[in-house]
Amino acid sequence: MTVYFEDLTVGDTQTLGSATMPKSDIVEFARQFDPQPFHVDEEAAADSAFGELVASGLHTLCVSVRIFVTEYVNPSDGLANLGGIGFDELRWHEAVTPGDELSLTLKVVEKTPSNSRSDRGYVTFERHLLNQDGVDVLSLRSINIVRRRDDVAAER
Amino acid sequence: MTVYFEDLTVGDTQTLGSATMPKSDIVEFARQFDPQPFHVDEEAAADSAFGELVASGLHTLCVSVRIFVTEYVNPSDGLANLGGIGFDELRWHEAVTPGDELSLTLKVVEKTPSNSRSDRGYVTFERHLLNQDGVDVLSLRSINIVRRRDDVAAER
Repeated sequence: MTVYFEDLTVGDTQTLGSATMPKSDIVEFARQFDPQPFHVDEEAAADSAFGELVASGLHTLCVSVRIFVTEYVNPSDGLANLGGIGFDELRWHEAVTPGDELSLTLKVVEKTPSNSRSDRGYVTFERHLLNQDGVDVLSLRSINIVRRRDDVAAER
Repeated sequence: MTVYFEDLTVGDTQTLGSATMPKSDIVEFARQFDPQPFHVDEEAAADSAFGELVASGLHTLCVSVRIFVTEYVNPSDGLANLGGIGFDELRWHEAVTPGDELSLTLKVVEKTPSNSRSDRGYVTFERHLLNQDGVDVLSLRSINIVRRRDDVAAER
């Protein structure tokens, strides 16, 4: 059963999947999108403010989106997501280092029907990415466009 | 000459680099991090709200960060960036489609010396990613930690 706008309730919370961060993935991602020394070079990272190789925060964000999509949107009983509007208050709280295992918690914090389009609404999710010690490494609020089960303006 | 905290002035604006978005990159990125039908499958995309294959907004964000790092941080006269705190007000305004060419504009909108660490300050950049028609496809505010040229507390 697909999850439509009507099926979501403010306060709903769940924990989704998990992903590990191998050193090779950290370096490969950073070489492509965020080639700063502390993300791609272990020796340079040791001399940096981090003191060791750390994942690009952008990589951590990408992994959190992969969990959101593969565990929550793509299943046949997944979210009827029509797209994303944006992210607010995205913060990297703690460094992610090789071998960390990350899981995602999701909370519905706001629901607003679209004024202009009767087939959809806007849903704000608070997302937290936690490491294997339960430490919050990334948090953000996403605004997604979600299809309504019943198009309130449709003629029947 | 490295760009330190002291070298930045609120209001400073510049346009950086550009990047093209080949269809193969759009699909490859989305398969890895955002495998929704409208990002990975042309036929499914034609039936979606977008009507055609569109880049993952996360991919667009990653490309904007690549431009920021390769054109503004990594050069020998680049920004003395110690890391990122987060992003605010990130919005995807328009779809990015195969072949689009994107460039980044940067504006310094806020500077705050650190209260606790005399060797650094916080700089808020307003970033806009524009396509080949000058349309703003992505905007956000980033907060970066930037090293000071002169550590105000250091003994000399």
